[in-house]
Amino acid sequence: MNDVIKLLTNHRSIRKYSEQPVTDEQLESIISAAQGASTSSNMQAYSIIRVTDQDVRQRLSVLADNYSYVMECPVFLVWCADLYRLRQAYQQHGDPEQGYFGTMENLIVATVDATLAAQNAAVAAESMGMGIVYIGGIRTNIAEVAELLKLPKYVYPVFGMCIGYPDQAPGLRPRLPREAILHENTYQPDKLPAPLADYDHTMKEYITRRTDGKRTSTWSEDMANKLKAPARMHMLRFLESQGFLEDQEDLDK
Amino acid sequence: MNDVIKLLTNHRSIRKYSEQPVTDEQLESIISAAQGASTSSNMQAYSIIRVTDQDVRQRLSVLADNYSYVMECPVFLVWCADLYRLRQAYQQHGDPEQGYFGTMENLIVATVDATLAAQNAAVAAESMGMGIVYIGGIRTNIAEVAELLKLPKYVYPVFGMCIGYPDQAPGLRPRLPREAILHENTYQPDKLPAPLADYDHTMKEYITRRTDGKRTSTWSEDMANKLKAPARMHMLRFLESQGFLEDQEDLDK
Repeated sequence: MNDVIKLLTNHRSIRKYSEQPVTDEQLESIISAAQGASTSSNMQAYSIIRVTDQDVRQRLSVLADNYSYVMECPVFLVWCADLYRLRQAYQQHGDPEQGYFGTMENLIVATVDATLAAQNAAVAAESMGMGIVYIGGIRTNIAEVAELLKLPKYVYPVFGMCIGYPDQAPGLRPRLPREAILHENTYQPDKLPAPLADYDHTMKEYITRRTDGKRTSTWSEDMANKLKAPARMHMLRFLESQGFLEDQEDLDK
Repeated sequence: MNDVIKLLTNHRSIRKYSEQPVTDEQLESIISAAQGASTSSNMQAYSIIRVTDQDVRQRLSVLADNYSYVMECPVFLVWCADLYRLRQAYQQHGDPEQGYFGTMENLIVATVDATLAAQNAAVAAESMGMGIVYIGGIRTNIAEVAELLKLPKYVYPVFGMCIGYPDQAPGLRPRLPREAILHENTYQPDKLPAPLADYDHTMKEYITRRTDGKRTSTWSEDMANKLKAPARMHMLRFLESQGFLEDQEDLDK
């Protein structure tokens, strides 16, 4: 196992940061790494909003489930799926209204492009000794976040990311057994129960130890609790209102 | 710039592979790296199908836009967004029909989880001197691919990935100028034209040189050509048929 793979397997989310700043040069390296990631047909269908204004940061941290680390982290980036810039490019050669931007395919392409770039950024930051945490919470009040960041139509914020030097050393959270996520040639539903039971056991022990017995739930319990209630049901309508599925309707209906 | 960031900024897609095999141990490291990536609320909403059967590989390569390297690469992985396994976990504590799985939010969570894991796998492979290429082409005939791989409902193939030792050394493709993708505090549409014009110039030179003058198009021309026709319009209906938006409809309509 080489040093890069050690780094990749050693990730833990960091939610508390030291005073040590991230320099502009380091941030440039992080962004360069992001841009180095694969992108579908060179579309580069993502943008990054760096939030430096303390008022904007404060409002964002409240909108994003009130996580204090969104306010406190040295660098906060919002990773956006972006078809707007492609429309700008298209406009030089034709009327974007005649092109096909708002389709489920392009929504997936842009979401994937943003995520590939973000993960490269995460790895780059961690390679310099920093820690990161992804903030899915920016989707909780996504319309307000989009308004705050003045996102144009055809752009949506996929997640945020806090970056900074760690001031905590959380344990490594166990992952599902490999056999639960890796299949050969065909998906094999029948092989899932055993590794899921193993993982429930592992996670119950882990959580009990980590919380000094305050929590003793298994993974499947946690997942059931999470998924029994509707969450962020506004996402479909928000994406529709941002134009992400508008060309789909022309052909579908 | 440290070695990891050099690796991340030095990525190029590899479509031709040497005879050198990828060992099982190396593949285990790649999968471990994938599992090390961040995942939303520990949902780990993705699965990987490794395709080793040559008949399955052959059919996949035809379905995925006829790319020969899907057939020829030493390792081919299909990265799937997976809510099925979470339904299995849920089932131990309640009826999954009562839970909320098929929502746009969960579609995004699962797509992001699959992509974070895949990008870690890509970096891990490249750290061992291998090359990779993402295969979005598996979405071209996605229903047939899902059937071939026997994907259950609530699973969809996001992209494939070829992995192997490179037998080619393509040039590094220039990316958009940083100012075109990075904004501060708010999205600034007005600053896009200048860097897009610069990039068109850069890419025209790059493509002309790389193809010995056979192609001389700019980036914005390439994008306009790509986006002027509908592509993979079946994605929305396919995802609906796989159950990915079924709980959305309960509340929306």
